[in-house]
Amino acid sequence: MANKTYERLVEHIQKIADLQHATAVLHWDKEVNLPPRSVEGRSRQIATLDGMAHQLFVSSKTRNLLKELADNFAQLEEAEKRNVSLLHRDFERSDKLDEAFVMRKSRLISEGYHAWLQARKENDFTLFAPALEALVGIKKEEAERVGYQEHPYDALLDEFEPGYRSSKLDILFADVRKQLVDFAAAIRDKEQVDDRFLHQHYPDQKQWDFGLDILQRIGYDFDYGRQDRSPHPFTITFNSRDVRVTTIVDEDNLANMIWSCIHEGGHALYEQGLPFEQYGLPLGSAVSLGIHESQSRLWENNVGRSRIFWESHLDLLKEYFPQQLEAVDLDPFFKGINKVFPSPIRIESDELHYHFHIMVRYEIEKALIEGSLSVEDIPSVWNEKYKDYLGLDIESDNQGCLQDIHWAHGSIGYFPTYSLGSFYAAQFFAQAEKDLPQLNQQMASGDTSALLKWLRENIHQYGRKYEADDLCERITGEPLNFQYFMDYAKKKYGDIYGL
Amino acid sequence: MANKTYERLVEHIQKIADLQHATAVLHWDKEVNLPPRSVEGRSRQIATLDGMAHQLFVSSKTRNLLKELADNFAQLEEAEKRNVSLLHRDFERSDKLDEAFVMRKSRLISEGYHAWLQARKENDFTLFAPALEALVGIKKEEAERVGYQEHPYDALLDEFEPGYRSSKLDILFADVRKQLVDFAAAIRDKEQVDDRFLHQHYPDQKQWDFGLDILQRIGYDFDYGRQDRSPHPFTITFNSRDVRVTTIVDEDNLANMIWSCIHEGGHALYEQGLPFEQYGLPLGSAVSLGIHESQSRLWENNVGRSRIFWESHLDLLKEYFPQQLEAVDLDPFFKGINKVFPSPIRIESDELHYHFHIMVRYEIEKALIEGSLSVEDIPSVWNEKYKDYLGLDIESDNQGCLQDIHWAHGSIGYFPTYSLGSFYAAQFFAQAEKDLPQLNQQMASGDTSALLKWLRENIHQYGRKYEADDLCERITGEPLNFQYFMDYAKKKYGDIYGL
Repeated sequence: MANKTYERLVEHIQKIADLQHATAVLHWDKEVNLPPRSVEGRSRQIATLDGMAHQLFVSSKTRNLLKELADNFAQLEEAEKRNVSLLHRDFERSDKLDEAFVMRKSRLISEGYHAWLQARKENDFTLFAPALEALVGIKKEEAERVGYQEHPYDALLDEFEPGYRSSKLDILFADVRKQLVDFAAAIRDKEQVDDRFLHQHYPDQKQWDFGLDILQRIGYDFDYGRQDRSPHPFTITFNSRDVRVTTIVDEDNLANMIWSCIHEGGHALYEQGLPFEQYGLPLGSAVSLGIHESQSRLWENNVGRSRIFWESHLDLLKEYFPQQLEAVDLDPFFKGINKVFPSPIRIESDELHYHFHIMVRYEIEKALIEGSLSVEDIPSVWNEKYKDYLGLDIESDNQGCLQDIHWAHGSIGYFPTYSLGSFYAAQFFAQAEKDLPQLNQQMASGDTSALLKWLRENIHQYGRKYEADDLCERITGEPLNFQYFMDYAKKKYGDIYGL
Repeated sequence: MANKTYERLVEHIQKIADLQHATAVLHWDKEVNLPPRSVEGRSRQIATLDGMAHQLFVSSKTRNLLKELADNFAQLEEAEKRNVSLLHRDFERSDKLDEAFVMRKSRLISEGYHAWLQARKENDFTLFAPALEALVGIKKEEAERVGYQEHPYDALLDEFEPGYRSSKLDILFADVRKQLVDFAAAIRDKEQVDDRFLHQHYPDQKQWDFGLDILQRIGYDFDYGRQDRSPHPFTITFNSRDVRVTTIVDEDNLANMIWSCIHEGGHALYEQGLPFEQYGLPLGSAVSLGIHESQSRLWENNVGRSRIFWESHLDLLKEYFPQQLEAVDLDPFFKGINKVFPSPIRIESDELHYHFHIMVRYEIEKALIEGSLSVEDIPSVWNEKYKDYLGLDIESDNQGCLQDIHWAHGSIGYFPTYSLGSFYAAQFFAQAEKDLPQLNQQMASGDTSALLKWLRENIHQYGRKYEADDLCERITGEPLNFQYFMDYAKKKYGDIYGL
């Protein structure tokens, strides 16, 4: 028989979820539909709903319900126990940050964002430095308040990747440094592949139609979602039965649309696969940003940039663009879409150099938080590391340490989850290939439904039932291991670049 | 110096407004964007936010702030006094309906809606009758709780048209019966005008583009709004700087798009003209549904179906549809768009017969509330009145008393505001013509900006500063008077039908 207190907790938490998801609708509408000069009213509505959701969550009502359930924990069913435990953990974290702290941080973020905009405009990091200094200061304070066992950075990382630690990241990135830096450098010495076919004129409407087509083919359910346009593609969830994606169409670059559709589609497949009956609860939510990113990158790279996927889909693409792609065969297509070329800009990076971008940011933010690096030294350290890892000379702050919005938003500990995503993706995909002997054959015929089913069964259906590393171990028999990504990279790019 | 308590009230009320307008975004998105099967999650989000806004408004916080301000009323500035008084009035009304009553009503409405859908499906009023009986019962109870001076119907009317009374409606509709019934009958005896040019093939995209064009020309500001598509056109406000309209395009009927755009545009011009600095407060809100409808109908009918408006705009329309309208001159165009033809369906009605539809509903709902008519007798009374006023035989319940959703939604006292809107519109427009000697000349050249300025200055800028009838008297020197509508109708339709 259902526990009454648990039912009251669920009702309370789902009410908060309604507020949070209403806020998500306000954000989505802001990015997709907002009239040119309507931002002021929308910002205050978002701020109000954010504040109300936060207040409701850190309320004595939440505290008392959780306390009562903790006192009678043994009476709960397994799924209920997990929800209560995780809500307790989330509550404890929020509870350590009182309202005065939250407001102070919120003000610093607002100031940091504006300083960053100004610095970007002037291409001058020193204009951002004082605000960033203050943000680093409050993030250090946050780490102390939240608490940690090994390193203050862990307290910040925990917000995005619960349970992960910098000691584990250090091991991963040591591997990246040891193996990937040399491999990428070797590729840079090889003859470059030709991707000019991607940069012809591809009409907007045809691109749009192909994007919808490919989303549907990988299993995105348009009964419970839709695709719109926005300057920066994103996925957003109002509940697992209303998960929306956006894309961007550049008529002179087919790649933007295709892989943003598949990437966001991967995120959306995860969200659509979460159990609707656990709406708003931990068991209805994604494990971590790293696991979320593993889903988008698995579809984008392991599937969407594989030769086998395009064995059938290139013909489909040619139906949309017969003239542009008439002379392009599978082999040059596959090579062109996997061109490796170092860029100073993270979001323009190929999937190998990408991890150096993340490593630079990780090393810098960890040093900032432990106090071994001062904010004013960021540009010189940044540029030095780009030279070391990517062989690039950074010519200006806008091309360097001012390029990302994350730090200005107070998000320190976020960047590593991008790399974790790729590494988890490689490990999961390797396991899927083992578990599904027919997978390659199915994918060659354009059918990815068995892969989706595998992801649903092994990952999506559980929500936050398992921690990221436990989930990984459960599925693949071992915790996250960089070797899977390296094997994937060596096989694929060794083939493409003849290494 | 600003009053601290007043500032706290404003902050509190605007926070509630943020919730209400977030709910409006959820509704808008539901009508315009919702994926086919996402309604369940959306409905619960709307219900949660609705409930929270209601609870916050009827809270002891509102009561205490209003009490404190009432005790120090003399210290407030004029605008503050008006906001406080109206909030007090709104609060009192809500306060008389306790939570148990609101939930009971909400359940009856939900049941009523489903019974109505079923009855519509079976084309059988008796399937709706028991639910309607219950709804009428709770509306009677609501009237008793809210209180009234003359007639219980007034307590219900007050929700939509504050301060109006059925005794005033009786006078208006007596005039309608006395003058308009015979006039419409006389038109029906005349030779019919030709509107076949409206029912050619008009391509969707061209219609869409013309709709945007005409909205812009009448002054709708796309910096603070947008138009989308929805099955039933509507206007919705997120704040006066984000006011959105929707329209419907029927490729075989040009009229739907044109006059829904102008009608919703009229509503939107009102909302965009409300003072942004009074966001969420009475002085930033519309006076009443009747005054709101006066704005939409003034633009739709007094402007948008006038000969003078089309003197310049017909050429514009012909630029969009040169083939379809090549042979249509201004005179037949003007006649065709003003065809008078009785229909059993209210929303398909011309602007004369329309008021008989409203009169039937008003007479029936007033009789239901005072207890002089029982629900089971509605169909026979309905059909009898349609014969009397419109000369029509009603062939089925779906063509008769089941056609509107309003009663199923528990909205009794709503219908009369449609007629009030038309009558106010005629009276306002007559005054604008007096105040603006150049108006006809300007409109003939396609320029309606002076009219909009007049509406902004006389109506929009004030929000709820004046009650509807006070506003009318202030502008036109007398309270609402049906004669203005009748004069307008006689002049226009006398001309068209040679009477």
